[in-house]
Amino acid sequence: MPPIDTLVYSIGLAGVAAQAAAGVLEAGNKRFDLFGMIVVALSASLGGGSLRDMLLDRRVFWIADQSYLVTAVLAALAAFALARVMRLPARLFLLPDAIGLALFTVSGTQAALALDAPWLVASVMGVITGAFGGIVRDVLCNEVPLVFSGALYATASWAGALLLVALTTLDVAHAWSALLAGSLTLALRLAAIHFGWHLPLFRARL
Amino acid sequence: MPPIDTLVYSIGLAGVAAQAAAGVLEAGNKRFDLFGMIVVALSASLGGGSLRDMLLDRRVFWIADQSYLVTAVLAALAAFALARVMRLPARLFLLPDAIGLALFTVSGTQAALALDAPWLVASVMGVITGAFGGIVRDVLCNEVPLVFSGALYATASWAGALLLVALTTLDVAHAWSALLAGSLTLALRLAAIHFGWHLPLFRARL
Amino acid sequence: MPPIDTLVYSIGLAGVAAQAAAGVLEAGNKRFDLFGMIVVALSASLGGGSLRDMLLDRRVFWIADQSYLVTAVLAALAAFALARVMRLPARLFLLPDAIGLALFTVSGTQAALALDAPWLVASVMGVITGAFGGIVRDVLCNEVPLVFSGALYATASWAGALLLVALTTLDVAHAWSALLAGSLTLALRLAAIHFGWHLPLFRARL
Repeated sequence: MPPIDTLVYSIGLAGVAAQAAAGVLEAGNKRFDLFGMIVVALSASLGGGSLRDMLLDRRVFWIADQSYLVTAVLAALAAFALARVMRLPARLFLLPDAIGLALFTVSGTQAALALDAPWLVASVMGVITGAFGGIVRDVLCNEVPLVFSGALYATASWAGALLLVALTTLDVAHAWSALLAGSLTLALRLAAIHFGWHLPLFRARL
Repeated sequence: MPPIDTLVYSIGLAGVAAQAAAGVLEAGNKRFDLFGMIVVALSASLGGGSLRDMLLDRRVFWIADQSYLVTAVLAALAAFALARVMRLPARLFLLPDAIGLALFTVSGTQAALALDAPWLVASVMGVITGAFGGIVRDVLCNEVPLVFSGALYATASWAGALLLVALTTLDVAHAWSALLAGSLTLALRLAAIHFGWHLPLFRARL
Repeated sequence: MPPIDTLVYSIGLAGVAAQAAAGVLEAGNKRFDLFGMIVVALSASLGGGSLRDMLLDRRVFWIADQSYLVTAVLAALAAFALARVMRLPARLFLLPDAIGLALFTVSGTQAALALDAPWLVASVMGVITGAFGGIVRDVLCNEVPLVFSGALYATASWAGALLLVALTTLDVAHAWSALLAGSLTLALRLAAIHFGWHLPLFRARL
């Protein structure tokens, strides 16, 4: 693999690991056993890409390449072991999780564009890839998904996905458009965490 | 497109819009942000057809034709905007939602029959297409699905689907069988809402 | 069909029936109507295999062969009727449910191995096939999945799946490896129920 692909691949594995570890911490708030936590971790880290691949009728990525599954299981076990001996700050995983979000958004959008999906579909596919895992994680833990009220999680993903679609339409080189779109998602998400940005919450008057 | 197809297509878009708007109102009972509401609206309006297409290994309908996705997003935004300035009665969406249910039931059953699915499978596929979106919506809102205790929602869908299968077996013309089956679903659902019909609720003695 | 295949096929149908009946009893703790219970029963009994087939891009098993769907619906109706006239002990379904778990684990792992999936993927596919239905059932009932804290449910499944992968790698005959792996899952699960074995529960210190 050329160095740039190796880098992207490694970041992808790191993103999977971060989302798996964050899944374990979420599951740890409930009384799950070791296996339950691994299931939540796998759902959180592999769920978005799995839904993307099933919707697009592609080979599911973690079935085609076992590394993602091995990484997710090991990261879940490591987070489990660490959390038993020390207090893990939840913030520890925010940066790698945000990097994973950015990368999954880019990869999901690119996969849809490669199949000639129209622009809105492609951007939604990026958001699904980035954010669906967190939704499944919270549903399994029987909570209202944090993604729906959190600090611009999916919004950051959608902004990056739309930028990627726009740059691709403008024929910007593949690598540059991916870098710019991923950076936008990452910057928006990190800024939102730091400054406490939220979309306004809404309550219907029924 | 011939006029009849244009009509069916338009009703389909209207059904998607109604279920998306109803999803926004449901999400509005929780404290979701704008994005969370759009996710719930998209799940409610596109979830059933997506599961049908993944199960039947067909091209997912909203990926093949972006109009559905655009319609769902616009309907969600419109419902959101309206709900902020005025009190929207939940009943407002009951009629278009019922039309959507009838249409999705017919389209789901026909899609399965076209792939030579056996009769029970075809009818279940109609129910999945019509009712699964509402189940996902309620699961995302962390509530027990209304479909499971509501006014003949899925029951009306199943009755229409079974009628469609029977009429197709009897070689009734495509358009007529679709019209009759859709009308049965619509009439049953509206009558159930009007007269407060429910299946008996059940509580196991464990 | 040769006698052994008939036997395996019959056990598979029995497993589907047991998980459907167990689903009805679970749904009966909520106030669902008849239709809601059938949906929960179908999700519990067919959900795992459906996800397996969608992930592996195979024809979904209950669409290809209607017997599974008919069996699940009939078992759900029978459990519903029985539960209305007498007190059904939940333990009644533990043995057939455990047999179903063992059989689904074996069939899921074998299906993945037949598609040349790597070892960890194949074993996870066995666990998905065996345990995912129970997860969906509990999510639909708006409860934290029992699988995550129960008596070695998924753990027994994973142990059997890993044994099957190992035996297949060692070129043990198909029928023998399936029998041994299924027996391991069944024995582990039944022993865990009898002796009250649990994995240690975990609560993160956040």
